[in-house]
Amino acid sequence: MTLISDAQLVTMNERREVLHADLRIENGKIVEIGHGLVPRGDEKRVSAKGCFVIPGLIQAHTHLCQTLFRGLADDLELLDWLQKKIWPLEKAHTEESLRASAQIGLMEMQCLGTTAILDMGTVALHHVVFEEAERSGMRYWGGNCLMDIKATSGPLYRERVESLNYCAQLIREWHLKTPLLQYAVSPRFSISCSDKLMRGALKLQQEHGLLMHTHASENKKEVAAIKKRTGLNNVQYLQNLGLLTDRAVIAHGIHLTPSEIKAIVTRQTGVTHCPSSNLKLASGVAPITRYLEQGMKVALGSDGAACNNNMDPFLEMRLAALLQKQLFGPTALPAIQAFELATLGGARVLNCADQVGSLVVGKRADVVIVRRNHPSVATVDDPYSALVYSSSGRDVSDVWIDGRHVVENGAHAIYDAAAVTAFARRELAGLLGRLSSGRNLSGCSAPKLKNQSS
Amino acid sequence: MTLISDAQLVTMNERREVLHADLRIENGKIVEIGHGLVPRGDEKRVSAKGCFVIPGLIQAHTHLCQTLFRGLADDLELLDWLQKKIWPLEKAHTEESLRASAQIGLMEMQCLGTTAILDMGTVALHHVVFEEAERSGMRYWGGNCLMDIKATSGPLYRERVESLNYCAQLIREWHLKTPLLQYAVSPRFSISCSDKLMRGALKLQQEHGLLMHTHASENKKEVAAIKKRTGLNNVQYLQNLGLLTDRAVIAHGIHLTPSEIKAIVTRQTGVTHCPSSNLKLASGVAPITRYLEQGMKVALGSDGAACNNNMDPFLEMRLAALLQKQLFGPTALPAIQAFELATLGGARVLNCADQVGSLVVGKRADVVIVRRNHPSVATVDDPYSALVYSSSGRDVSDVWIDGRHVVENGAHAIYDAAAVTAFARRELAGLLGRLSSGRNLSGCSAPKLKNQSS
Repeated sequence: MTLISDAQLVTMNERREVLHADLRIENGKIVEIGHGLVPRGDEKRVSAKGCFVIPGLIQAHTHLCQTLFRGLADDLELLDWLQKKIWPLEKAHTEESLRASAQIGLMEMQCLGTTAILDMGTVALHHVVFEEAERSGMRYWGGNCLMDIKATSGPLYRERVESLNYCAQLIREWHLKTPLLQYAVSPRFSISCSDKLMRGALKLQQEHGLLMHTHASENKKEVAAIKKRTGLNNVQYLQNLGLLTDRAVIAHGIHLTPSEIKAIVTRQTGVTHCPSSNLKLASGVAPITRYLEQGMKVALGSDGAACNNNMDPFLEMRLAALLQKQLFGPTALPAIQAFELATLGGARVLNCADQVGSLVVGKRADVVIVRRNHPSVATVDDPYSALVYSSSGRDVSDVWIDGRHVVENGAHAIYDAAAVTAFARRELAGLLGRLSSGRNLSGCSAPKLKNQSS
Repeated sequence: MTLISDAQLVTMNERREVLHADLRIENGKIVEIGHGLVPRGDEKRVSAKGCFVIPGLIQAHTHLCQTLFRGLADDLELLDWLQKKIWPLEKAHTEESLRASAQIGLMEMQCLGTTAILDMGTVALHHVVFEEAERSGMRYWGGNCLMDIKATSGPLYRERVESLNYCAQLIREWHLKTPLLQYAVSPRFSISCSDKLMRGALKLQQEHGLLMHTHASENKKEVAAIKKRTGLNNVQYLQNLGLLTDRAVIAHGIHLTPSEIKAIVTRQTGVTHCPSSNLKLASGVAPITRYLEQGMKVALGSDGAACNNNMDPFLEMRLAALLQKQLFGPTALPAIQAFELATLGGARVLNCADQVGSLVVGKRADVVIVRRNHPSVATVDDPYSALVYSSSGRDVSDVWIDGRHVVENGAHAIYDAAAVTAFARRELAGLLGRLSSGRNLSGCSAPKLKNQSS
């Protein structure tokens, strides 16, 4: 049992109340919110005096397998970035380097206030990521990615039946092994996936009631390649395959036609907006103001560390708000709406808004304390303005996930930060050594995407 | 004397060397850089083991007088933002509220790694800002702003001759009172300044060899208003008045014609790019990649806290790099170039690149230690990628300006953070009380800009 006292609770409840109150956690749930709650004898007490207490932040698109690649693949466009850097790097993973990548990524995201993620793995070894997700205490959805078109999967090509069998094995071993771990079926993107693979993925998803997670319409060349192969727009193609459901999550969704937008909204498919990644890979800016107006479920995500290069959810909230003003004028996506995307928006996209996304009695206890004593924040009374425009993930002091205290007073409570960092640096050096040309990644090579335009 | 040891020095010297070395400061200057420098008896020793040591970051456009207004004026377009919020708020300043605003702003900027600023004040009381600039140890250029067109200056209107006399008085009292304090002549923007005022400002600038600092071409309505009044584009108008010199700094410069760009480049006028502010006020994105290709002097700035709402120079470096990729493709403005804008670029715009902007023996000691142990940064070897894409101003631990240690191990060495914050909150409450409608700023009113186009 834990009592967080003296908090300014930014509840995100139905009335969007901001309360000066205490919050009690018991058996992983929020059991009481009120003024002057009386501490109990055996209860852990944490003062949040002068701090914001917020719902845990949700990032509905990331790649833990890429955390080690941070800073190794800057200044490239999506398809070059994948072929020349990311795929060869993913291919070079061993169990240990993948473990290091997942550990430091999970530690980073939790320390910065993230309590739930939707993760796409590489094509193999994904049990390692589940092991670390379990150890870290993260609320985790994820799975190995699927890629079965030889010409467009580079070194990550995997035969379809073998791939789907691997999914089935991971589902058996990991899906709901604990209440925090859920498997997500993850065809990488339409460019690398055959129709048959997509149908096999869909079958698995339906059989087990899973989330479906894929990239779509991130990049104009990607859209053109799908159009060339299938005659259809990217999301239209997914729709024809039956993939657009209320349990599917599309990462990016930048270049959508009006009818694709309508299809996504009608089927209540989720879209994860990743503004830093989209700028860095020069992909475009998703017009999420329009999407939200039409009733789309929209979440935020940092994407992987190799294309961002920062997994701070506060950066994504801020950038999401700023970029929409550029597209739709200065009143677009005010701070409260950006904050909603990172909390309830994420919960809706992951179909768990009945469980998390707001500080409400009865919900699971995903709770974050954010200090507000930095001079950048200290004079701002509006909590949404303070959190979205002026705060940093570096201001997070404490994080609970499902009632478990995973970050305590700025330090990770489960991982030893120095050991995790040293392990990551060692495994990164080993991984780079495994690539034939050593540290010089310009030597990496992978087959050209056949369908890549220009 | 100070010896910073065991540093990874990101020198920004001519060869852009990154050195594992020690750095010695004496009499405000960098006097030695080398391996294994032997500590002297009376020398302060600071270990920078595992940290980056970088040139102090330069922000060539801000408004310290607006720091208290952070979060009070969100989600507005420039001209509304000025008329409805900022001008009435500036007008409500007393000496004490202005002092509070300057103190917390200087403390914030220094704690986040900023060592030099170009500041535009409000129309009065600017001696208070000079007093705090002196106390804080900031390398400071600034001055009261000038506004003499009644119909377009709202409550900040000041009669021309009186205004220019006030400038002359501040120049006598403050310009080069210490080597770190310089007066900058600051007509606010062409909309609020008569030709006569501009000529008077120019005369003062030339007489005393000062910097000239103004806003121009930030907003399309602003450009249209100047065109309507003068028949000229905004910068073309400044050029005709003779204001475009190598000692002038234009904040924003977003909407420039090719001939205006050429004029700015030819005259070696500086432009300060403020990407967060420009997005937040929906002003546009300055195509600084093109400007730099043509040889323009470009600096970065956070602008004031009321339109950003964060004065972290690391945010501006990151956003500058990301936004240019959106405009010009993924290889535009790589990390090293964004870092240059915040160091040497700022120094060139402020005409002090012979003094600061790089870690070179003989230059003044504006030096910053940046921790790199956060999991967001800890595995990145490329210092520019680490600093621009993955670091935060929250990672700054120590700051020297002109050899003076103003931030020590994360805490401000001159200001008491808790006292400054309490003072700021108290003065903010008083200032809001002085506005007739109390905290409800929607009650603020100011005359409509006559020349404002729909």
